[in-house]
Amino acid sequence: MRTLLRRSALAAAAALAPALAVPADAPPPMIGFTADGARAQAVLEARFDQGLDAREMRAWLERLSSEPNHIGAPHDRANAEFMLAQFRAWGWDAQIETFSVLYPTPKRVSLEMVAPRHVRATLHEPPIAGDRSSAKTAGALPPYNVYGADGDVTGELVYVNYGMPDDYRELARHNVSVKGRIVIARYGAGWRGLKPKLAYEHGAIGCLIYSDPRDDGYGAADTYPAGAGRPAEGLQRGSVADMPIYSGDPLTPGIGATRDAPRLPLSEAKTLLKIPVLPISYQDARPLLEALGGPRAPAGWRGGLPITYHLGAGPARVHLAIQSDWSQKEIYDVVARLAGSVYPDQWVLRGNHHDGWVFGADDPLSGNVALMAEMKAIGALAATGWRPKRTLVYASWDGEEAGLLGSTEWVETHAAELAEKAVAYVNSDSNTRGFLEAGGSHSLQRLVNQVSAGVTDPLQPASVLARARAVAIVGGSRGSEHTAEERRIARELLDGGDLPLDPLGSGSDFTPFLQHAGIASLNLGFGGLQPGGVYHSIYDSFDHYVKVEDGDLHYGVALAEVAGHVMLRLADADLVPLRTQDFAAAVGHYVDELDQLVVHARDEAEANHRLLDERVYELAASVVDPVGPPARQPAVPFLNLAPLHNAATTLAASARAFDAAFAATTAEPARLTPARAAAVNAALARAERALLGEPGLPGRPWYRHMIYAPGLYTGYGAKTLPAVREAIEERHFDEVPAAVTMTAAAIDGYRHALDAATAALR
Amino acid sequence: MRTLLRRSALAAAAALAPALAVPADAPPPMIGFTADGARAQAVLEARFDQGLDAREMRAWLERLSSEPNHIGAPHDRANAEFMLAQFRAWGWDAQIETFSVLYPTPKRVSLEMVAPRHVRATLHEPPIAGDRSSAKTAGALPPYNVYGADGDVTGELVYVNYGMPDDYRELARHNVSVKGRIVIARYGAGWRGLKPKLAYEHGAIGCLIYSDPRDDGYGAADTYPAGAGRPAEGLQRGSVADMPIYSGDPLTPGIGATRDAPRLPLSEAKTLLKIPVLPISYQDARPLLEALGGPRAPAGWRGGLPITYHLGAGPARVHLAIQSDWSQKEIYDVVARLAGSVYPDQWVLRGNHHDGWVFGADDPLSGNVALMAEMKAIGALAATGWRPKRTLVYASWDGEEAGLLGSTEWVETHAAELAEKAVAYVNSDSNTRGFLEAGGSHSLQRLVNQVSAGVTDPLQPASVLARARAVAIVGGSRGSEHTAEERRIARELLDGGDLPLDPLGSGSDFTPFLQHAGIASLNLGFGGLQPGGVYHSIYDSFDHYVKVEDGDLHYGVALAEVAGHVMLRLADADLVPLRTQDFAAAVGHYVDELDQLVVHARDEAEANHRLLDERVYELAASVVDPVGPPARQPAVPFLNLAPLHNAATTLAASARAFDAAFAATTAEPARLTPARAAAVNAALARAERALLGEPGLPGRPWYRHMIYAPGLYTGYGAKTLPAVREAIEERHFDEVPAAVTMTAAAIDGYRHALDAATAALR
Repeated sequence: MRTLLRRSALAAAAALAPALAVPADAPPPMIGFTADGARAQAVLEARFDQGLDAREMRAWLERLSSEPNHIGAPHDRANAEFMLAQFRAWGWDAQIETFSVLYPTPKRVSLEMVAPRHVRATLHEPPIAGDRSSAKTAGALPPYNVYGADGDVTGELVYVNYGMPDDYRELARHNVSVKGRIVIARYGAGWRGLKPKLAYEHGAIGCLIYSDPRDDGYGAADTYPAGAGRPAEGLQRGSVADMPIYSGDPLTPGIGATRDAPRLPLSEAKTLLKIPVLPISYQDARPLLEALGGPRAPAGWRGGLPITYHLGAGPARVHLAIQSDWSQKEIYDVVARLAGSVYPDQWVLRGNHHDGWVFGADDPLSGNVALMAEMKAIGALAATGWRPKRTLVYASWDGEEAGLLGSTEWVETHAAELAEKAVAYVNSDSNTRGFLEAGGSHSLQRLVNQVSAGVTDPLQPASVLARARAVAIVGGSRGSEHTAEERRIARELLDGGDLPLDPLGSGSDFTPFLQHAGIASLNLGFGGLQPGGVYHSIYDSFDHYVKVEDGDLHYGVALAEVAGHVMLRLADADLVPLRTQDFAAAVGHYVDELDQLVVHARDEAEANHRLLDERVYELAASVVDPVGPPARQPAVPFLNLAPLHNAATTLAASARAFDAAFAATTAEPARLTPARAAAVNAALARAERALLGEPGLPGRPWYRHMIYAPGLYTGYGAKTLPAVREAIEERHFDEVPAAVTMTAAAIDGYRHALDAATAALR
Repeated sequence: MRTLLRRSALAAAAALAPALAVPADAPPPMIGFTADGARAQAVLEARFDQGLDAREMRAWLERLSSEPNHIGAPHDRANAEFMLAQFRAWGWDAQIETFSVLYPTPKRVSLEMVAPRHVRATLHEPPIAGDRSSAKTAGALPPYNVYGADGDVTGELVYVNYGMPDDYRELARHNVSVKGRIVIARYGAGWRGLKPKLAYEHGAIGCLIYSDPRDDGYGAADTYPAGAGRPAEGLQRGSVADMPIYSGDPLTPGIGATRDAPRLPLSEAKTLLKIPVLPISYQDARPLLEALGGPRAPAGWRGGLPITYHLGAGPARVHLAIQSDWSQKEIYDVVARLAGSVYPDQWVLRGNHHDGWVFGADDPLSGNVALMAEMKAIGALAATGWRPKRTLVYASWDGEEAGLLGSTEWVETHAAELAEKAVAYVNSDSNTRGFLEAGGSHSLQRLVNQVSAGVTDPLQPASVLARARAVAIVGGSRGSEHTAEERRIARELLDGGDLPLDPLGSGSDFTPFLQHAGIASLNLGFGGLQPGGVYHSIYDSFDHYVKVEDGDLHYGVALAEVAGHVMLRLADADLVPLRTQDFAAAVGHYVDELDQLVVHARDEAEANHRLLDERVYELAASVVDPVGPPARQPAVPFLNLAPLHNAATTLAASARAFDAAFAATTAEPARLTPARAAAVNAALARAERALLGEPGLPGRPWYRHMIYAPGLYTGYGAKTLPAVREAIEERHFDEVPAAVTMTAAAIDGYRHALDAATAALR
């Protein structure tokens, strides 16, 4: 069926691409390639595609997800060894790299409501008819949040909505304190580790996190097995490490967790939580929430349970007890290499993790089997004598779920070599039917657009790029459903602009590569159609995956094509395929956003002061739902962001010059002498490293990228120009000048690297 | 307690008023009064306030709501006779005016689901502990929607969200038709009569309307008796007459329904529905909705039931049968007069209805007892020899719930006299604790601001104006919760502008006065704090009212003060207290909105065409929730709205001139000769009539006001400059030129009236 569809793909893909008159014998547009190189690459990619086999991927998926595969599970190691054997069989130079990490596992977990009546939480996901593995959970860990503290606490319950900073400000206006109490937060709106962290910072002694049915249960979709919604008993396990501080093993920040590495004592590990925390289902949450009194929850806080949500505190009182085994466990990264023929010391990296919370069919194995398929297809190419120009490094990481352990420890272990050699890192994770979602370093934006324009969607005779563009436009044209930023993107797309990459925050293995090591990175996957209603539950199973996700693995093949073509072009391009104007434009846009952020913050503070001074909040207070005035905001001074504007403006000019010289060089192969190519490629491979700033982000120096970071108070969500943006957002205005200087210096450093490359091209 | 609060009221009220240096002996600001007149009026109002007694109002409320009081109920007539006796005892010239109206009542009503399983709907509201009258419903009608058709239909069910025009467009994109089927719509988003009307127009054979718990049940508040939310069995009765065509008796449009009036045959009554329709509770709705298959409902369509909402059609099939008694019934308006001493032929009118759906404690009796309290207090003033300058006409209407029957038939009966004599009409209806909500003719905006600045809130030492201003500002300052229009209003309020009146749509007895007879009107009441979760159910009882609404009737007193002071100032002002710049500004703003509406419609049509032509909708379609492309929109031509801009601009100049002359005259009492005052007052009393246009609004000539109307597809919600706005919104572009001409002519007519009055003032 895919072949059938492909025939008309080019015509359809053109529908949304800028109209161009393309001569019949023109080479496919491939940044970094000469015309002849592009023609050859297209042939190579077609051969690569022939090596992808959806049925085989489905079989791997079934095998890898057949037993619990969390850290320490026998099947986790067995999967690593199975892959090792496969990779070697496919011609790769592969080995398992083992790290020893702190990975607490629960020994005793209990939750009960002790007042106003007694209810014991089941904390159990029962088997579901038709889902074979849901009845075979022997060896699975009890549901828990790894890196929460041990404890035995009893206290009144308080509902804190998503448990994010704004939620605590709202709680204060309702005169509800969490001090000495246990909070119940719903999943969503930010990294789950922030929920217990913020609860602790506000004085709470324990934290429950439940999955509200409005967010990913029956309110979002029919529940599994009828659809993709979370069943009443389903619950979301997950890490609560304070990952915005650093990822990886909590005891070895910045260094590889090899067996003999020096380790912090537990008490000094900054990413360990201070209070016990437990994930529960909405079936277990309902009696607790129903027993809450106190103020009615604000409108935006009400979920999908058939109750009136209240804040508490109490009269519900709960007793939460968690006791864990805090021993070290081993994790198994499977890393494979195919040496480059021209630039063996330029590494193009690709990764996906293989550990899951239980069976992990969708998360992460759906992406992992795409990575395997790419490796087998590349191995087949290599078997015919082909070699990439640059070295390919493929890895299946372990321990991602606990906090990007396998990738982080590997990056930290090989930091020096990576600083020297890494060209780019391409990540994937969960994958399912839907639309291409691509995030990453904006210098790679054109590459991703070109590659995805050439990959046909499994369900429509159109490219995956055309479909991703269409969904961005249609969402935007619906108006109120999209943000102003999304509407701007839709307009630019309609005007023929490239599909923009999302800036990367965190939540998967790209973080150590991009934000710690300064390696240009991408994160690729398909999805977006339905809620992840079995996310991190036992129902994320093979049966679930083939029933309600990508049953025939056609989108698995599509991912392998997109990621594989990206890898092959990065490996084979005559010049490392960066278009730097896209990066410069993104930086310019982010700097403009900072201006708006300051203006908005100042307007907000001034309104806040005036309304407080004129008693407007008091006069507007409701007798039915009394809400106190908000806290007085600090005044917002005028800030000097000029260095950022100057850096962005000069970067834009340098980027234009570089891109022009780059294009001219690949257009005239005679100019592409080996010496010139080597000089330019060496510079480009390392360019992203210029964006690392010293001493790193304020309060979290492990994060060194000055353009992209996970938000300190979003966790998954990206903050661009994070040092400056977060100083403004957190109203740490005294930190702004240093942040501006450090960020502008990084942008200037990148510009200098470009200017040097431009000079080398002339 | 109220007296205690009042002491500091002036100081507090000033907090949000524009800062003015007021000399100690300055008269209170009262538009239309000389300084001496204002001082005397303030004394009069203080005496009026002394006559208001919350405990007496509470006793009236209990008595009037003690038995079902719908049209035809013995207690409905008994209430009218009780009030008649009271009004006469208080010194008013009162009588009951009786009309004979078509008022079908159900004889047999049944609803059952016949597939996929059998469920019979209870259609019953059981007694609730602590609510005495909920156990005494003998004599109440079965729950129904009056003016639905009789019928016995069986068909597949389709969920249509709110059943509004946009909902049918969305349904079409999901490829779901209601033809030959029965729809289930939730209450909200527009006049309930539009739901069966639109269902019929789309081919449905029956209509159910249910109250979704997210909108006014547990999703909004704790359910009664714990709070103000609708209980599971509670259901909303109500009229489904096609009121945007005309209000009042369906058989006598435009003429009074006196016993001998000529009547249309049933078949020609345009406001009668064509299919059976029934209101049901969410308890009865749940099994029906749960049994629906077909596409998953779009996100915005999902309510608060713990199910995944689907559209159908089927497999749920329902059987709906309704048979009614279609005989005439009598309604009883109680109308009382106190003759004016100076201008007996200038009538200042006040009304509230007295019929309820069952007990009607909140709706309408909470407002009706304020009206009674005003009448008693005015009667007491009259007993001391005082007389209003103009004639006061107070009325307690019957039959409002069925379709504004009592007020409409009275207005139609007395049309000629009202055209000659009416100065203004002041309406109220349900009233409860909360914030002042005021809508009406914008020439009365300053009067309402001045009056409400002088009435102290029952719960805070501030004026009701200060609190209403505060809540409008704070809502606006929260940003996303308010619309752009609300944020604009908040900014203007912070800059010291008057609290704007809402334009009036429909939903209460002001409609025949304002929109049919062209009488400047106001609608006043307190509320806005909690959902009307017992609205039109048996639980809208005295016990409910005193438990969760305005238990001590203090906001009843506040309404009596605001409405009473407005009435007394309208009656006693030296010059009819209109500030016409406020009206001119509103008209100018509405004309600007039309410009934006056209631009927005054109942008939308162009985007729609481009996305259809480029196949973007197809490319963006989801395989999980397939949605087809929207229908192709008609192109939006450039339209000549210049006549409206010209009319609004010249009106603004005339209004400035008039207001200046008006202010100069009241500031110099010597200029206020009886002859000049009489001439000017006669002109001002009739000024609003100039805004009636011939032949009325397109397709609904009963509605003649060219500035304010209920929307043809909103019903309650106002459409300003309705002839032009709806022609644009409905894409009837060929109707725009005539609508512009008619509307501009009405604005010009008002301006001519002002110019004449200005000339008389000079």
